[in-house]
Amino acid sequence: MVGMDVGATKILVGIVTKDGEVIESRRYMMERSSQSQVLNSLETALTHFMNAWHGPAPLAMGVGVVGHTKPASGLWVRAMNLPIQSIVPLSRFLRKSIDRPVLIDNDVHAATLAELRWGVGKEIRDFIYLNIGTGLAAGMVCNGKLVRGTANYAGEVGHMVVDPGGILCTCGQRGCLEPICSGDGIMAQVRAGLRDYPDSTLFQPNQEGVLSASQVFQAAEAGDRLASRITGKAVWALSTAMINLVNILNPAAIVYGGGVVKDGWLMGKVSEFVSANALVTARRALKGIWPSRLDPEQVGLLGAASLAWRYLEKKEAV
Amino acid sequence: MVGMDVGATKILVGIVTKDGEVIESRRYMMERSSQSQVLNSLETALTHFMNAWHGPAPLAMGVGVVGHTKPASGLWVRAMNLPIQSIVPLSRFLRKSIDRPVLIDNDVHAATLAELRWGVGKEIRDFIYLNIGTGLAAGMVCNGKLVRGTANYAGEVGHMVVDPGGILCTCGQRGCLEPICSGDGIMAQVRAGLRDYPDSTLFQPNQEGVLSASQVFQAAEAGDRLASRITGKAVWALSTAMINLVNILNPAAIVYGGGVVKDGWLMGKVSEFVSANALVTARRALKGIWPSRLDPEQVGLLGAASLAWRYLEKKEAV
Repeated sequence: MVGMDVGATKILVGIVTKDGEVIESRRYMMERSSQSQVLNSLETALTHFMNAWHGPAPLAMGVGVVGHTKPASGLWVRAMNLPIQSIVPLSRFLRKSIDRPVLIDNDVHAATLAELRWGVGKEIRDFIYLNIGTGLAAGMVCNGKLVRGTANYAGEVGHMVVDPGGILCTCGQRGCLEPICSGDGIMAQVRAGLRDYPDSTLFQPNQEGVLSASQVFQAAEAGDRLASRITGKAVWALSTAMINLVNILNPAAIVYGGGVVKDGWLMGKVSEFVSANALVTARRALKGIWPSRLDPEQVGLLGAASLAWRYLEKKEAV
Repeated sequence: MVGMDVGATKILVGIVTKDGEVIESRRYMMERSSQSQVLNSLETALTHFMNAWHGPAPLAMGVGVVGHTKPASGLWVRAMNLPIQSIVPLSRFLRKSIDRPVLIDNDVHAATLAELRWGVGKEIRDFIYLNIGTGLAAGMVCNGKLVRGTANYAGEVGHMVVDPGGILCTCGQRGCLEPICSGDGIMAQVRAGLRDYPDSTLFQPNQEGVLSASQVFQAAEAGDRLASRITGKAVWALSTAMINLVNILNPAAIVYGGGVVKDGWLMGKVSEFVSANALVTARRALKGIWPSRLDPEQVGLLGAASLAWRYLEKKEAV
């Protein structure tokens, strides 16, 4: 199956087998100055990839995109980080280039479906897939099914309020989880905090534009005060949010992926908090908080392709 | 079907038709000084009810109990408000008295299944059933299925932390929702607050032991300062929790029941907050926050009986 992982800055297209193996994949730039440029980028990437692909013709394609989608009608409704001004009939649009059924979904939903099919879902039927990269969102699987919500919009865990009266979020509320511990949120706090802590070890890498979340965590471990303040709050906020989710959903596992949690530092701390503070029955039922076993570079692509595999299986079942 | 609604202080037994009509029901006292007294109360209630019932023999019985259950094995594992010291094989125990299959579940799960079968679930497949009585819990229905969690423990919304560093909860955390806006929580805040506000209009009814949540809300509307402080916080905390749930689960409706929300005051305020502050896509998808259309006195009984109806339908489907 063809999968297409559409991020805010890049497009990954690839061929994924039924066992979740990526046979071939290519990365393309996203031109994001207008809606038509975005769509043009997608079309160009797909056409180039398919022209270069000499294996058997794929039966369907799946596309995971940032933002809000309506999978049943193939519509891309909204995106925070891309200039989608009007609703895009994405399935229909891309079908022109590939002449195969095109299934679409939100990227985090798609990644969660990849987890369900090829990752932790092979053994566990109730889990949360937490993604912390530039933003923060989660996919929830209950009894082996992805929780989509009534408008396919479930999973906006980044907008759980955990710090009332705290940082103003883009959503209009104060104290949401996302601005406290997403990648963008951590970087914004560093920039703001450097005014009060000009001698922080984060100054130089921030100035050079090379600062990563991992470096902030390491600086905190090394005693940097600004880094400690930011990471302390991130650990506490994310722990609170995960305890809330564990108490509400009673999952058997939380698996995580994304740039901010790649080094395991943040989630290691969070894991300690959760196992000490969630409700007794809920924390005993939680087997663990683990990094996703899927390749973080590929999980979006796998998720996209899993949409196509699901489609095919349902069709064959009829 | 026979339904048995087991609360901390009373037992309701009744016969419920397939359409959700209660044909006959009787209320019994719960003797709660020991585990054997609790079980004896259940047995006595059931035996008395069945001896007095002269209609057709029921095919199965459902039992909703406070606390944690394992429905598949018929076990009652824990209860906060009743002295269940060791795991009770409740299905097997009650079957001795009625000689029919006995299905058990947590009372809020059961009430949510009643909502799904006879209430809002007739039209809506993604909803939250919120119960605020002496305690606070919720049942979540996603895509027409009750979210049970891996240990049948999902729904402990009362232990969502919304006020970090706030009131100490029985669960060990600070700032949980339950002690802020459950019935017990409101009454505890009144008792504690009367030390600072001895001239509050709540003094007299609290002294007489007749104070209700409704009276606290009315006193707040009339300008009582203690009542205003308590209800202001309850409105804010419950609103935050509902916004969090709406953002996470993207439900089409929230329905509510229980003594604290009976008069509609609290949820009226909460509804305004949620429709102004949840994420745009999530709040547009939320059709409303409504009182349950099921009789609040009967919803537990209906929930219990719905367990038996589900069982029978599954059996017939095989």
